[in-house]
Amino acid sequence: MNCEVLCIGTELLHGDIINSNAAYISKNLAKIGIDVHYHSVVGDNPGRMKDAFNLAFSRADVVICTGGLGPTKDDITKEILAEYFNLPMEFDEKSLEHLKMMYSRFRREMPENNLRQTYFPKGSIVLTNNNGTANACILDVSDKKKIGILLPGPPKEMMPLIDEEVIPYLSKFSHEIVVGYKVAVMGVGESMAETMIMDIIDGQTNPTIAPYAGDGKMVFRVTAKAENKEKADELIKPIIDELLRRFGENAFVLETDKIEDVTFKKLVESGLTIATAESCTGGLIASKLVSYPGISSVFKEGFVTYSNEAKIRTLGVKKETIDRYSEVSEEVVKEMAEGACRVSGADIGVATTGIAGPSGSTPDKPVGLVYICVYYKGNYNVLKTIHNGSRDIVRERASINAIEMVRKSIL
Amino acid sequence: MNCEVLCIGTELLHGDIINSNAAYISKNLAKIGIDVHYHSVVGDNPGRMKDAFNLAFSRADVVICTGGLGPTKDDITKEILAEYFNLPMEFDEKSLEHLKMMYSRFRREMPENNLRQTYFPKGSIVLTNNNGTANACILDVSDKKKIGILLPGPPKEMMPLIDEEVIPYLSKFSHEIVVGYKVAVMGVGESMAETMIMDIIDGQTNPTIAPYAGDGKMVFRVTAKAENKEKADELIKPIIDELLRRFGENAFVLETDKIEDVTFKKLVESGLTIATAESCTGGLIASKLVSYPGISSVFKEGFVTYSNEAKIRTLGVKKETIDRYSEVSEEVVKEMAEGACRVSGADIGVATTGIAGPSGSTPDKPVGLVYICVYYKGNYNVLKTIHNGSRDIVRERASINAIEMVRKSIL
Repeated sequence: MNCEVLCIGTELLHGDIINSNAAYISKNLAKIGIDVHYHSVVGDNPGRMKDAFNLAFSRADVVICTGGLGPTKDDITKEILAEYFNLPMEFDEKSLEHLKMMYSRFRREMPENNLRQTYFPKGSIVLTNNNGTANACILDVSDKKKIGILLPGPPKEMMPLIDEEVIPYLSKFSHEIVVGYKVAVMGVGESMAETMIMDIIDGQTNPTIAPYAGDGKMVFRVTAKAENKEKADELIKPIIDELLRRFGENAFVLETDKIEDVTFKKLVESGLTIATAESCTGGLIASKLVSYPGISSVFKEGFVTYSNEAKIRTLGVKKETIDRYSEVSEEVVKEMAEGACRVSGADIGVATTGIAGPSGSTPDKPVGLVYICVYYKGNYNVLKTIHNGSRDIVRERASINAIEMVRKSIL
Repeated sequence: MNCEVLCIGTELLHGDIINSNAAYISKNLAKIGIDVHYHSVVGDNPGRMKDAFNLAFSRADVVICTGGLGPTKDDITKEILAEYFNLPMEFDEKSLEHLKMMYSRFRREMPENNLRQTYFPKGSIVLTNNNGTANACILDVSDKKKIGILLPGPPKEMMPLIDEEVIPYLSKFSHEIVVGYKVAVMGVGESMAETMIMDIIDGQTNPTIAPYAGDGKMVFRVTAKAENKEKADELIKPIIDELLRRFGENAFVLETDKIEDVTFKKLVESGLTIATAESCTGGLIASKLVSYPGISSVFKEGFVTYSNEAKIRTLGVKKETIDRYSEVSEEVVKEMAEGACRVSGADIGVATTGIAGPSGSTPDKPVGLVYICVYYKGNYNVLKTIHNGSRDIVRERASINAIEMVRKSIL
């Protein structure tokens, strides 16, 4: 069984919003062993929508479509699907109740045009959307061996329907599951990392190893198909062990999509407390810490000392150090990290200072230059990095690097 | 002239990464009046890649393709395009120099397989990629009236090539431009906002007004086509004036993609200094401030006081206040905002405290509850909000709300 994800919306084609739906749906289908061969996006245009459905059903067994279930006259996805299968539209009583309930909850009167949201292609399984007015549907046309699934476009409405309705429904068609693990490799170039394990990548069909790189990190995705998780894990374990052996302390297994969570988990387990002192990253490290549930037991305090005045007053950085070496220097970042520990009483201090751009560079200090320091047990571990890219990219990478340095410090 | 965006990468189909490239490319093509009718994503599979190119060129004049320009044997986009046009691959001296330069900069030896990155379909205009090893190309096959453009997959490599090479190249084929403005509306529900201006939306063809909503904000995109910017602006101005009139101080024109930049610009213009005191948002507000170039003149300092100990020691929040009302309360958020001002000497203090979840709720304090306070000129402006969604969503929305409150405070 294979699936195509078809997203409807002119706002996607205009680039006004990024298509996160296709990724979310694909990731969840992969877990139950359903391959996705294509993503397509088309605007709210009847002719092109018809073409897109024709094409999608010509190459996939299941077409999952997002968008175009709203109350306006541009919302015609259900009608196009009905037309494709030559089915009439049918009134759904349950959806009318749903609409009435949603409008009474918001204490608003239901506009007439919302009634369009109570009609579905005949034979549809109607799915209740608990986060919006637009109910969704699964149309399983068994004599044609095709399944069309229509979901609302807003991610917060679409995602629960995938989790609670679509994946359970499609699971029964899949006889194997796909289990994937991600191994992150930090501080080794993409090409170098790939070369180091080329022999493993080449030799494998199940599990497969797929590299991908981005934002200063390299991740290998190790994926196995098997009839259950235990058997898949058995296939995967030797591969992961070998990757960890070859890359040593530069590699670790990711448990979530956020690479920094590995560090935060270790931090919480260790019970070591941490404080941040950020200049150019301006709170990004603190914000990543706080995004980790349970960090409160170890995160003492964060200081965003973007101004020199704050570096001096709050962290006790010496004015002479700034005057002599400038605020973007190894000497200042060390005083910041140590100051964060001293003021907050934390075990570990992590600090950044740099030139995120676009302005602020000097002949010997280019845009993208960032000093990072981790202070722990009286030792200063300093990294000087230069990143290309926008202000936000420089800051993001510096944050990721800083958190990685914390991980290595507490290893 | 119309264009299709074709993104190559199995990692996209697995949902490992979100396809932000298609949106970026589309947005920039829209500005020069080139329509995009389809986005497609296909994996690193030669057969399906060929099909995808065939299909894309059958319905579009220009196909912009990202991904598959790397050094590995999976990277075959250039070969597939050459095959489509029946052209041989040709060595590009400039690309060899580029590779040597990139490797010498990183002080690493160039692996043999990188040489694949020096071959392009014959007749290509090779584009130098200043942010990576993979050079890009434009293949303008004038006798077939088709243009194929191949770009690297990583966004930070792709984006500058779009800005500096692709858009200037394609601009010459476009006789009109599209100018768009965005008007944000905060604090008014989506349906309500749309209803309030339904008569304007319905009556318009040029400019058009398209609403889109997400993450607690509502944005109307007003777009006009004309032969030059002045004429487009003339068409747009009366519409924007009318939107601003109807929504009053809840509406403002966005100058960047970040809704918060409007506040930050006003802040810098006003010369009023600001300090942040964040609990549940944990540095997100500070981080957004620092992402705005030039904020250093007004951003005094940020405090991430996630622990009660830090709230008391650093901001001077009274222990009795926490004991009596709990740390998630109107009373505490007020003391935090005032404390941030007092400690830093800033004119404005903005503070947050809340329960971002997933745990930490009590019967009368649900997950998603956030108190926000802006302290300015002796006045406390407090907002209590409850957001549905994940920890990160709650924190993001609270940050956006807090920054919007700063905007209204200094109006």
